[in-house]
Amino acid sequence: MVTPPEFDGRFRERLEDLFRWRRDVRHFRMDPVPADLVARLLRTACLAPSVGLSEPWRFVLVEDEARRAALRAEFLRCNAEALASREGEDAARYARLKLAGLDRAPCHLAVFADPDPAQGRGLGRRTMPETAAYSAVMALHTLWLAARAEGLGLGWVSILDPARVSAALALDEPWRFIGYCCIGWPEHEDAVPELQRAGWERRRAEPVVLRR
Amino acid sequence: MVTPPEFDGRFRERLEDLFRWRRDVRHFRMDPVPADLVARLLRTACLAPSVGLSEPWRFVLVEDEARRAALRAEFLRCNAEALASREGEDAARYARLKLAGLDRAPCHLAVFADPDPAQGRGLGRRTMPETAAYSAVMALHTLWLAARAEGLGLGWVSILDPARVSAALALDEPWRFIGYCCIGWPEHEDAVPELQRAGWERRRAEPVVLRR
Repeated sequence: MVTPPEFDGRFRERLEDLFRWRRDVRHFRMDPVPADLVARLLRTACLAPSVGLSEPWRFVLVEDEARRAALRAEFLRCNAEALASREGEDAARYARLKLAGLDRAPCHLAVFADPDPAQGRGLGRRTMPETAAYSAVMALHTLWLAARAEGLGLGWVSILDPARVSAALALDEPWRFIGYCCIGWPEHEDAVPELQRAGWERRRAEPVVLRR
Repeated sequence: MVTPPEFDGRFRERLEDLFRWRRDVRHFRMDPVPADLVARLLRTACLAPSVGLSEPWRFVLVEDEARRAALRAEFLRCNAEALASREGEDAARYARLKLAGLDRAPCHLAVFADPDPAQGRGLGRRTMPETAAYSAVMALHTLWLAARAEGLGLGWVSILDPARVSAALALDEPWRFIGYCCIGWPEHEDAVPELQRAGWERRRAEPVVLRR
């Protein structure tokens, strides 16, 4: 029997720092991320909670240059559509944002969820099948935090058509696309979200909490 | 300009401990959780990433005993249906599991997502509207980790019908139900998931990683 760890006030302060300084990064240096570090982060990600202990997260490391180019093209297509749906000053401001680090990030990781895994034997998914996807989201989030603690940045790209991502990656499995991660060493660090620095949106001052 | 924090090896080890010892807790002591601690955890949850900086997480603290009783009844109804859908040894093993701490947890928190928030101005949700729900999942996960660092346990209950949860909480808003959290001081701590200790399922030895 292992003794449970005690987390002290000093650790909690650093954990709050980690939450506060985790960013969605779109500006990367191009030096590579060691393969053993990536492997370690993927193992850490698997410590995330999962519905029924189903561990439905599935990872695809995208290394082939042609596939990376196809995904960049898919992002550019979706981003152009998003821009075209906006008008006037809104469109002008949207056009100025850099919304992905696909051009420079040395490590590309696509995260999927098995929507109906055998593992876990269906527990907890009967009324809320979306909890399989939610489990994969928490694995991605765990990896994100662990990466930041190593000084690595991660940017989550969602401006993609899920079906086209699966096609570009030649996936036969009926996995649900969760998000495409650009991972690398950030060009700079900040406690303020990039979208706030760019004047797109501001954080809310207080959480929305109802009482019932 | 604030200096970015440096996270050292000692912090990363403790962070890994946190991931490893975060459990889905179903056995609680009944002593209360201080209200200011709950308020602090809710603020920390808001440091989670969100699509387009939309912060779509919405929290409902469930305090009324009649509403708590209605949610326990809804869990029991859904759990009985889940049991009825199983046969033989599978049903017998399912019946032996304790799948929620609704009977004893002193703090009940329902987490929702606004599926179409004005904040964030739609950025990043055009092809993947589910990223609003995913953002709320990461807020819940952030709260879970911060709670564990305080010695608190959290159990995520998904054996509920989302529409009935919203009705039981008299919510007018078109929010999407993400999960119902039981929060309190755990009766015991463990690094092994309860479903593994109970013989229901085992963790996988290695992550599923494809290369493309």
